[in-house]
Amino acid sequence: MPALILIDRPAIGMTGEGAAFRSLPVGTPVITATDLGVTRGDGIFETVAIHDGFVHAGEAHLQRFARSARMLDLPEPDLDVYRAALEAGIRELGPVPDAFAKYVLTRGEEYSGTPGARGFIHLDVNPAWSRERSTGVSVVTLSRGYARDIAETAPWLLQGAKTVSYAVNRSVLREAARRGADDVLFTTTDGYLLEGPTSSVVLRFGDTFVTTPPESGILPGTAQIDMLNLLQAEGFATQIRDVKLGELPYADALWMTNSQRLAAPVHTLDGTAVKVDSELTARINDQLLRRTR
Amino acid sequence: MPALILIDRPAIGMTGEGAAFRSLPVGTPVITATDLGVTRGDGIFETVAIHDGFVHAGEAHLQRFARSARMLDLPEPDLDVYRAALEAGIRELGPVPDAFAKYVLTRGEEYSGTPGARGFIHLDVNPAWSRERSTGVSVVTLSRGYARDIAETAPWLLQGAKTVSYAVNRSVLREAARRGADDVLFTTTDGYLLEGPTSSVVLRFGDTFVTTPPESGILPGTAQIDMLNLLQAEGFATQIRDVKLGELPYADALWMTNSQRLAAPVHTLDGTAVKVDSELTARINDQLLRRTR
Repeated sequence: MPALILIDRPAIGMTGEGAAFRSLPVGTPVITATDLGVTRGDGIFETVAIHDGFVHAGEAHLQRFARSARMLDLPEPDLDVYRAALEAGIRELGPVPDAFAKYVLTRGEEYSGTPGARGFIHLDVNPAWSRERSTGVSVVTLSRGYARDIAETAPWLLQGAKTVSYAVNRSVLREAARRGADDVLFTTTDGYLLEGPTSSVVLRFGDTFVTTPPESGILPGTAQIDMLNLLQAEGFATQIRDVKLGELPYADALWMTNSQRLAAPVHTLDGTAVKVDSELTARINDQLLRRTR
Repeated sequence: MPALILIDRPAIGMTGEGAAFRSLPVGTPVITATDLGVTRGDGIFETVAIHDGFVHAGEAHLQRFARSARMLDLPEPDLDVYRAALEAGIRELGPVPDAFAKYVLTRGEEYSGTPGARGFIHLDVNPAWSRERSTGVSVVTLSRGYARDIAETAPWLLQGAKTVSYAVNRSVLREAARRGADDVLFTTTDGYLLEGPTSSVVLRFGDTFVTTPPESGILPGTAQIDMLNLLQAEGFATQIRDVKLGELPYADALWMTNSQRLAAPVHTLDGTAVKVDSELTARINDQLLRRTR
């Protein structure tokens, strides 16, 4: 059921014989021991949800992929090639109602003289997220160690780029598990909320829905923005602004959002129960599932 | 001339048929598209220098590898297997006077039910470091974005672990190049020196040589400690202590040290010339080259 596409020419300006990408048997090794993607985490990725063959927010993800490449001074990804390779992968998957694709670009060989790049796409059936989308998740706040202005004052730290150097994002989930929680909400050293390791945060204060801004060094989320747009269309007020840690006790509800899991309501925050609006959550997830742009 | 060893059973408790590792033609892909090493930078590594077949500080590197694995809750690497695989790789390399090996352990397949792990070793001739070891390097200070106590207050950020999530360590070298420099000395937000992206720092104040402590979240360097031990044997005073940014103007000399490049004197720091003690530097590098433990 899963599918694997190896992209031999993932970047603009790469030339060669034959097709730019090819399908391979799942499990075929595709990365060498000297590829900077695995030796230095020097690469970028996106994960997209695919429903009935449509890639959700496909263009927004491709544009964010290109933005990450610029932040890392990587070769410019050939988005036409990635688009076509994704379509080929979706055909391989067959008629699956709920799937995902993870696509990657690495800087390629460390010791080759010529600048290279390597790409691949892994596609598979989406795991079941029904519990997370309905009952919700338990979340702990953990410090990301940085101040709110880090992306501006130290852009070399790559905050806001979606790199494959995600060891910290994995480590904090183990710390959450040790504390009996499912997920993490990062905070800054000067007391602001950021995002989760693989998600954005949306908060409700009365009839206003708020999410945190890319200027604080978070990844600009696609599900995060789609959720705010849906709520705005329903007549709610929405804001993209800094949120202080001290505002958390006044939030009526919060959600952790990403492309695969969609909007997961938070039922417990740092050990304290939070009210889940099941009806609103179900409506949002239903609408997020039906987006097809 | 280079060599590649794939380690099929890199961790304690892994069982299977045949040998724990095998030699493969260089360039053979060894990592799949679903290995967490390349999709999440979820793995660890060490780079060691090999002179005339001897691995420098071989045991110290293996112990640090095991320490990194513990910091990431990875399966415990089988150091006997890595030792034997390194020896096999060195035999493949042949009689090379100056070589290096990079060995890696990744968390393995993301979507397999059983916990796995994957290992490999890449060996090759050491690039020529004679210019860096004699003339030296130009260095700029850049903020690491963290306070000095980060390893203690937020261990989930993995400061001090040698992970393959090195995108930031690569990014700061590009920032250094933009500023016309070769290397970077990281600083904390509260004004302390840390280390370089791939090296430690040693400073001279009069007849005292100082390096920064692992407690500040830096990687415990092997060349750093060996250099201090050599200087102590020559009768110099040595200290492992916090160094404030404000002390830099009073340093008589400084070096960036690592296993491959050894001690590179700093000839320029943030655009200001620094005196290089060529005689002492040559003596230290000669002795570091001759260590064989």
